[in-house]
Amino acid sequence: MTLLFVSTHEDPAAWTAELRARLTEVPLRVWPELPDPDAVEYALVWAPPPGLLATLPNLKVVFSVGAGVDALLADPDLPRVPLVRMVEPGLTEGMTDYVCQQVLAWHRRGPLFARQQREAVWRPVLHQKLARERKVGILGMGALGADAARTLAALRFDVAGWSRTPKSLPGVQSFHGPEGLAPFLARTEILVCLLPLTPETDGILDRRLFAALPRGAVVINAARGRHLVEQDLLAALDSGQLAGATLDVFREEPLPHTHPFWSHPKIVVTPHIAAITQPRTAVAQVVEGIRRHRAGQPLEHLVDRDRGY
Amino acid sequence: MTLLFVSTHEDPAAWTAELRARLTEVPLRVWPELPDPDAVEYALVWAPPPGLLATLPNLKVVFSVGAGVDALLADPDLPRVPLVRMVEPGLTEGMTDYVCQQVLAWHRRGPLFARQQREAVWRPVLHQKLARERKVGILGMGALGADAARTLAALRFDVAGWSRTPKSLPGVQSFHGPEGLAPFLARTEILVCLLPLTPETDGILDRRLFAALPRGAVVINAARGRHLVEQDLLAALDSGQLAGATLDVFREEPLPHTHPFWSHPKIVVTPHIAAITQPRTAVAQVVEGIRRHRAGQPLEHLVDRDRGY
Repeated sequence: MTLLFVSTHEDPAAWTAELRARLTEVPLRVWPELPDPDAVEYALVWAPPPGLLATLPNLKVVFSVGAGVDALLADPDLPRVPLVRMVEPGLTEGMTDYVCQQVLAWHRRGPLFARQQREAVWRPVLHQKLARERKVGILGMGALGADAARTLAALRFDVAGWSRTPKSLPGVQSFHGPEGLAPFLARTEILVCLLPLTPETDGILDRRLFAALPRGAVVINAARGRHLVEQDLLAALDSGQLAGATLDVFREEPLPHTHPFWSHPKIVVTPHIAAITQPRTAVAQVVEGIRRHRAGQPLEHLVDRDRGY
Repeated sequence: MTLLFVSTHEDPAAWTAELRARLTEVPLRVWPELPDPDAVEYALVWAPPPGLLATLPNLKVVFSVGAGVDALLADPDLPRVPLVRMVEPGLTEGMTDYVCQQVLAWHRRGPLFARQQREAVWRPVLHQKLARERKVGILGMGALGADAARTLAALRFDVAGWSRTPKSLPGVQSFHGPEGLAPFLARTEILVCLLPLTPETDGILDRRLFAALPRGAVVINAARGRHLVEQDLLAALDSGQLAGATLDVFREEPLPHTHPFWSHPKIVVTPHIAAITQPRTAVAQVVEGIRRHRAGQPLEHLVDRDRGY
């Protein structure tokens, strides 16, 4: 019985140190080291080579390093074993920090004042809205969306959330389902996308959605690049329907050097840094998941493959 | 019996509309209209011409439009009547929005990523601290400092406050007095100045204070320009003792076009827009102050002239 750690992105040192410290009852292998594929019952993976997991005959559970499992599910050879997505406080809190930073920046006209500074122009805007007068909407009310919504409400923003199924969160107005989307958008001045990427949400940030927001709204995408229809965003910014956008994720990453987003005066680009799984807190979740599985208890944060997350 | 509204800065329209709507029992005069100086018992003032208030023989209370009364106290002819500084939710909440915006921006390396965007450079910084790992310190724990500290704590920052006298705020570590300053600074990575300007705090943000912060700290000044010794800030940024600064207030405003702060790569300049008194909520405070005074009840937020705020 072995846990195989597979990462083609991360430097594994921080992960293996945490795993060795905490994973006391299960031996660890770090891919590409794989002397005995038959022994692997658990895998913790970040962008594994397609087909690799199918070569492990006794695999029982796959744990994802990332919160989003869209790339994993795209592997046609992914074994039909339970798949656990990452929900861990380090990732959640980092995302909330980022979302609050970007919402406050647009709320307080940060990009305008940055431009004025570059031009050495002193032009105060005295009558600015307070947070309580600003309507923020969160698309996607899972672990990330709910924590961001709760914290934005603590900042006194007027917060609403939209999700597939109804949610109840104190101080947050809740909308759900296809019929809840239009009224949710109609009241939202700053929209934050924290949806999982599924066939239903692919391209959801499109012309039709932008048109349903009030004129001059702002869109923040910290979920997946494929949520956004890039040409529709550029058109909505050009027409003034949208006043600005912050984008942390892109269809192609790194964002190509010649991409128009880089120099667009109404777009803030960050290089996919909103939030990252933190080895220390994440390994604790994986160790707990293995313990539950071995004790015959139900796993938490299981991916529903039909739903796509 | 009259209330005289005096403002040499603000367009008075928003103020007079609110005053007329709410000040039902006391006639209103708007300077320079002043047919009967003897009738004026109350004055609500924003940068009044020096000496003007001394010409009102029956003046009973002066209400300041601004939270800071340093300019008023500098008038040698200021009558020795009670002086009320402005504490009102619109001003407080606007300041908290600004402080949280600027703290989060430095916490999440906003200036670095803005520079990378201008150069179309994709260079992620993956391992960033969470708010709970970031130590923020508030200099000045009055109405503004306490609300900012409370809200930063709700964002999960590790918050401490320093004030002249001891304060107690849940979730906020409290330091006070001259002997509390060094330990407060030693633990503070992001320092926010919200002090009143008094002879004791004039120039408090100087070389000695910067040297007491951990290397690489950031300073945010949203109080008064005179709190900061400008040359000492430039030297501390040059030496790397400070990593950055956000400044909303300056010794000379507007900040002169040729001032080195405008183009300094480690300084964020905003044009004195952190927070402004909101006529709607402020007039309610003034009306309540007049009511209390006429009913013989003690006034709130009285300025102590010896203390200077």
